[in-house]
Amino acid sequence: MSGNSFGLLFSVSSFGESHGPAIGCVVDGCPPGLELTEADIQAELDRRKPGTSRHVTQRKEPDTVEILSGVFEGKTTGTPIALLIRNQDQRSQDYGKIAETFRPGHADYTYWHKYGIRDYRGGGRSSARETAVRVAAGAIAKKWLKEKFGIQIRGYMSQLGEIEIPFQSWDQVGENAFFAPNNEIVPQLEAYMDQIRSERDSVGAKITVVAEGVPVGLGEPVYDRLDADIAYAMMGINAVKGVEVGAGFASVAQRGSEHCDELTPDGFASNHAGGVLGGISTGQDIVVNMAVKPTSSIAQERRSIDKAGNPVMMATTGRHDPCVGIRATPIAEAMLALVLIDHALRHRAQCADVKVDTPRIPGAIGG
Amino acid sequence: MSGNSFGLLFSVSSFGESHGPAIGCVVDGCPPGLELTEADIQAELDRRKPGTSRHVTQRKEPDTVEILSGVFEGKTTGTPIALLIRNQDQRSQDYGKIAETFRPGHADYTYWHKYGIRDYRGGGRSSARETAVRVAAGAIAKKWLKEKFGIQIRGYMSQLGEIEIPFQSWDQVGENAFFAPNNEIVPQLEAYMDQIRSERDSVGAKITVVAEGVPVGLGEPVYDRLDADIAYAMMGINAVKGVEVGAGFASVAQRGSEHCDELTPDGFASNHAGGVLGGISTGQDIVVNMAVKPTSSIAQERRSIDKAGNPVMMATTGRHDPCVGIRATPIAEAMLALVLIDHALRHRAQCADVKVDTPRIPGAIGG
Amino acid sequence: MSGNSFGLLFSVSSFGESHGPAIGCVVDGCPPGLELTEADIQAELDRRKPGTSRHVTQRKEPDTVEILSGVFEGKTTGTPIALLIRNQDQRSQDYGKIAETFRPGHADYTYWHKYGIRDYRGGGRSSARETAVRVAAGAIAKKWLKEKFGIQIRGYMSQLGEIEIPFQSWDQVGENAFFAPNNEIVPQLEAYMDQIRSERDSVGAKITVVAEGVPVGLGEPVYDRLDADIAYAMMGINAVKGVEVGAGFASVAQRGSEHCDELTPDGFASNHAGGVLGGISTGQDIVVNMAVKPTSSIAQERRSIDKAGNPVMMATTGRHDPCVGIRATPIAEAMLALVLIDHALRHRAQCADVKVDTPRIPGAIGG
Amino acid sequence: MSGNSFGLLFSVSSFGESHGPAIGCVVDGCPPGLELTEADIQAELDRRKPGTSRHVTQRKEPDTVEILSGVFEGKTTGTPIALLIRNQDQRSQDYGKIAETFRPGHADYTYWHKYGIRDYRGGGRSSARETAVRVAAGAIAKKWLKEKFGIQIRGYMSQLGEIEIPFQSWDQVGENAFFAPNNEIVPQLEAYMDQIRSERDSVGAKITVVAEGVPVGLGEPVYDRLDADIAYAMMGINAVKGVEVGAGFASVAQRGSEHCDELTPDGFASNHAGGVLGGISTGQDIVVNMAVKPTSSIAQERRSIDKAGNPVMMATTGRHDPCVGIRATPIAEAMLALVLIDHALRHRAQCADVKVDTPRIPGAIGG
Repeated sequence: MSGNSFGLLFSVSSFGESHGPAIGCVVDGCPPGLELTEADIQAELDRRKPGTSRHVTQRKEPDTVEILSGVFEGKTTGTPIALLIRNQDQRSQDYGKIAETFRPGHADYTYWHKYGIRDYRGGGRSSARETAVRVAAGAIAKKWLKEKFGIQIRGYMSQLGEIEIPFQSWDQVGENAFFAPNNEIVPQLEAYMDQIRSERDSVGAKITVVAEGVPVGLGEPVYDRLDADIAYAMMGINAVKGVEVGAGFASVAQRGSEHCDELTPDGFASNHAGGVLGGISTGQDIVVNMAVKPTSSIAQERRSIDKAGNPVMMATTGRHDPCVGIRATPIAEAMLALVLIDHALRHRAQCADVKVDTPRIPGAIGG
Repeated sequence: MSGNSFGLLFSVSSFGESHGPAIGCVVDGCPPGLELTEADIQAELDRRKPGTSRHVTQRKEPDTVEILSGVFEGKTTGTPIALLIRNQDQRSQDYGKIAETFRPGHADYTYWHKYGIRDYRGGGRSSARETAVRVAAGAIAKKWLKEKFGIQIRGYMSQLGEIEIPFQSWDQVGENAFFAPNNEIVPQLEAYMDQIRSERDSVGAKITVVAEGVPVGLGEPVYDRLDADIAYAMMGINAVKGVEVGAGFASVAQRGSEHCDELTPDGFASNHAGGVLGGISTGQDIVVNMAVKPTSSIAQERRSIDKAGNPVMMATTGRHDPCVGIRATPIAEAMLALVLIDHALRHRAQCADVKVDTPRIPGAIGG
Repeated sequence: MSGNSFGLLFSVSSFGESHGPAIGCVVDGCPPGLELTEADIQAELDRRKPGTSRHVTQRKEPDTVEILSGVFEGKTTGTPIALLIRNQDQRSQDYGKIAETFRPGHADYTYWHKYGIRDYRGGGRSSARETAVRVAAGAIAKKWLKEKFGIQIRGYMSQLGEIEIPFQSWDQVGENAFFAPNNEIVPQLEAYMDQIRSERDSVGAKITVVAEGVPVGLGEPVYDRLDADIAYAMMGINAVKGVEVGAGFASVAQRGSEHCDELTPDGFASNHAGGVLGGISTGQDIVVNMAVKPTSSIAQERRSIDKAGNPVMMATTGRHDPCVGIRATPIAEAMLALVLIDHALRHRAQCADVKVDTPRIPGAIGG
Repeated sequence: MSGNSFGLLFSVSSFGESHGPAIGCVVDGCPPGLELTEADIQAELDRRKPGTSRHVTQRKEPDTVEILSGVFEGKTTGTPIALLIRNQDQRSQDYGKIAETFRPGHADYTYWHKYGIRDYRGGGRSSARETAVRVAAGAIAKKWLKEKFGIQIRGYMSQLGEIEIPFQSWDQVGENAFFAPNNEIVPQLEAYMDQIRSERDSVGAKITVVAEGVPVGLGEPVYDRLDADIAYAMMGINAVKGVEVGAGFASVAQRGSEHCDELTPDGFASNHAGGVLGGISTGQDIVVNMAVKPTSSIAQERRSIDKAGNPVMMATTGRHDPCVGIRATPIAEAMLALVLIDHALRHRAQCADVKVDTPRIPGAIGG
């Protein structure tokens, strides 16, 4: 397939353009018997939908999901679950002007050379709008992981531009427009974003995602390592330029005596590994960071070229997020959920019969 | 498959344990007609093999490769190329003592819980020894990419522990034991490593890999993005904890006006994207960084548990790299080559007929 | 994935139940630039839709297809093409009675044991209704194969129950309700079917599909042979119990001197191979037969068991095809098209550069 | 991959040419903890090896298998199992003469046009020698299926040329050179083969394979149906031209009242389905027939062309099976085992939690 399907056993085949009739996906491989309603999925979609604050795009999209198959009398049947989201607020006229030019920092130039044709309306297939599909599919994965293992997947914004956001509590993440785990810093973030917008500029962000309650043993040892698949999933999110698991780049300057997590009968003494050793989950929290680049669509004039190769100056108008990272948290959670359910299914295919007497120690002591 | 195959169209199916009879792989999908000899592969294997300096493991492995199939009269035939490397210097007795305990920072604990059985000799399947297979397969990919597109893939160590290594020239990378692009700093690196070893400790490193001459248009737009597959490939290398493409984590604090690379008829004005936009290659250099954690095997006593769950103290003896990052450069090059050849083949499957008049602009001006 | 996707490079991910809201699929990997409209697809769907004669089910389904993505300004863009067909005529009440019992010859018993839950309305996912999706996706494949290679894929009914149907001409296939290449025999077929219906019974059929204009070289040599994938595709059609390529089972009693097709500068002397040698197309016509079993849903009382395991007697009412083979021809054509386009894309991925001087000889002389 | 890997979760990646240094494969996905020795595999290889009677090729190949990985202290570890078989008796000189011509009925012509290069020695990759690899991998699958489910997979020759072979007993299959379940007919078969050889001709055969003890529920419902994958596996064996499941082509002339198998509390009343309904196993015996064409290599002069396209006359000398079907039985058994283990693993991935109260009825009463 041409890169529009995600997952081996719990697979998501995505479709749709930003300004086409609809976006959606086929989710294949969901175990039967899971209670599932459109409301379960809608709840996650509402967390990422646009227009929820002045700090995100003002495009109005209800992102209402319809389940077309795979659910009978309120439960999944083991057959494909098709999800459909009709596009509503399509101001295609905003985009007519970019049909002949390539927006800097966007996929316009690469799509044009790859395919020789592109749906230029709002970026078409390359639009971050497609991430709604991931959130919808991820909602199914999240629910199954929660019910099957008690796995909880949560994320937050850990840095906005230059501003690092100290973690206060998970409770506060849902209480502000930034998914910040810290309400006190919110006024500073708002002022910062207002300033960015006033400068007709944009800024990047860092998102942290954590999975708690993951059993030991998920992941494959060599190529499809759990951390490799996580890196693939996160780097595959629009605008992401970096991924870390556990200590990440900080491990470059660490000593082995510091980095490697000791084991004790009471649990791991630390979690520099971020919950993965040798590509397989340890039972510790899985901790992932991702770097989101600043939105490429800004109202400042920039140099570019047109389809004839001539130089042009262009400013990207239309309704854009001044920081795409703000809405990235639910997407990152969804992708982590999709990775984990796939590996959970793969694990039991091969290792369902495995029994060991060795006790499974808890995650990092006190954290 | 259980995660031991890499690539969709140019696939590598790897096998082998550190202290079993042999390691190797089946490479399937190599185009026919490529001139290939064992010497082509051996040259790359020799760059990563152990025992080449006092700063790496002293295990003596010639890593001699044998081509078992897929090459006839000096050319690839389009059928699977099987590569075999017999293990030579197996001091299994070094490892008997760890059969009953789990080395901190290693995959021992996770393998044991996943499979209920493990080849504990030198880490078995989880040993970095498997990376020789990647280098061997990557050598084939490198050769094809070079002959087909003139793509050149090179890497270097950009940081060793706390020491950042300023780039001087590509020529110097092959002139020292560290793959450092800077000979002047080598004495400092040597003294640093001697110090680490004397402390019976280990340290991390940062590796940078660059692909030049990549045509515009390689990569898939949504999940199998070129950068996503690169992240998957790099994070899948033993001990890697972080991956960046282009500006990476630095993009968090960047403004859109700074990050996004302007297009001009003479080329891109910069390369913060690292050669990938919307998951597809731009024609700029592809620039990737990866963080390698410090070796987990150190001679200091550490806390762990045994198979019964009882606390133990253990120091990992045997012959280990004090910095696994030192030999990681050829591995990173190989993985990047494997990603690029797979996408090159995928691209022509779908887009072989595409013709556009728009000129393809060169990479970043002056760099 | 759980078996709802077909094809490696031109992949179809199917969804939908017989009596759910809709059926459809995501087609991923279609080359960009192909002119495509809903009418192109509708034309094929209309060939298989129910209610077109008294010899097929009287269920009224317009099977109107909607293209949701992947087509822009009348051409494919290289991104996923989502196809949606809303279900219309759902007499679910017909099926309430079978919720607690297993219809003999159907998937009821196996689905129930596999999934522990099933959408019993009209067979749910196991209904032949899903084949509309294959025909829709196959229409895209057919169009591309026609425009790219001039490949023509056609099928016909070669046997209905005991009645063998002598081939008269391709023109007549579209002129009767049976896809029979012989109008003279149609009255006999109609009388036969009326007799079957009057006996509240059903009957099997044999369908022959031919692909003309296939270039030499399509197919993989060992497992994904062109004929192996054809067998997989045909046997995967509901009710199919046997598949032959070329001479098929007749080759059991043949001598090598008779079976193996001689080569001459003017073409192959015969086509017992059915257009495939060593898993790769020869340039001859690809000729495939498939056996379709009699419809399992008949109005006669049959023995079965209920969910509690108790014996029951049941007659399957509802609206059923007395011979599912009658509508199977367009489905078989579609599946052959899907196999060929996938192999055409795979072939150019690996062998796009291959050039040979040897002339390509035509197919069997005079046929 | 280019068609040299078989299976999704229990995958076999095969390599090797008839007259290269070796053949073999990487088996990935075998569950850990299975007791496995080279003797387990050798026993199956010895059943198909050449030179065992005057009715098969006289090439002397011990086909000695070496396990290179994935087994530790006599048990599988869950990591890839690499199998290596060195080629011994290579009379390449026999083949020099066919370097410039295409043998009728062989893959020479198609390989040449596909790849532009071919290892012509004994057919290279297209040689039936590769089937030794399938038998070796299948031996692992067979052992697991036997120990896990008590599944028994056995095959026999049901027809040789014009001679149908009445089934007498499974015990007799191993007592003659033809895998005939009937010792009385063996003298007739021997005389028949001697006659064929004296005429420098070859003949086809029909092989029947049966799997007993298969649990209900294995298989996927739409594309990866159990019977579709069986058809793919069997048609993928060299020289196979037709595949039937259950009643196969006989179902064309059957009535629904005859074909569809009634269910009773004591079991299915018949097994026309051949153990598969809706693509999923029913718990009845899985019964498969395959048609093997006559060997294309015969000593009679045949018309062909050379690489320049000029007409030539050629007789294929060398050491060939006058009926490749004679050694096909162990291969068919191996392929059926590979299909079943893959679906068994896929099934538990998705449906491991499924519980139903409905009793599972036995297979066909009295059969």
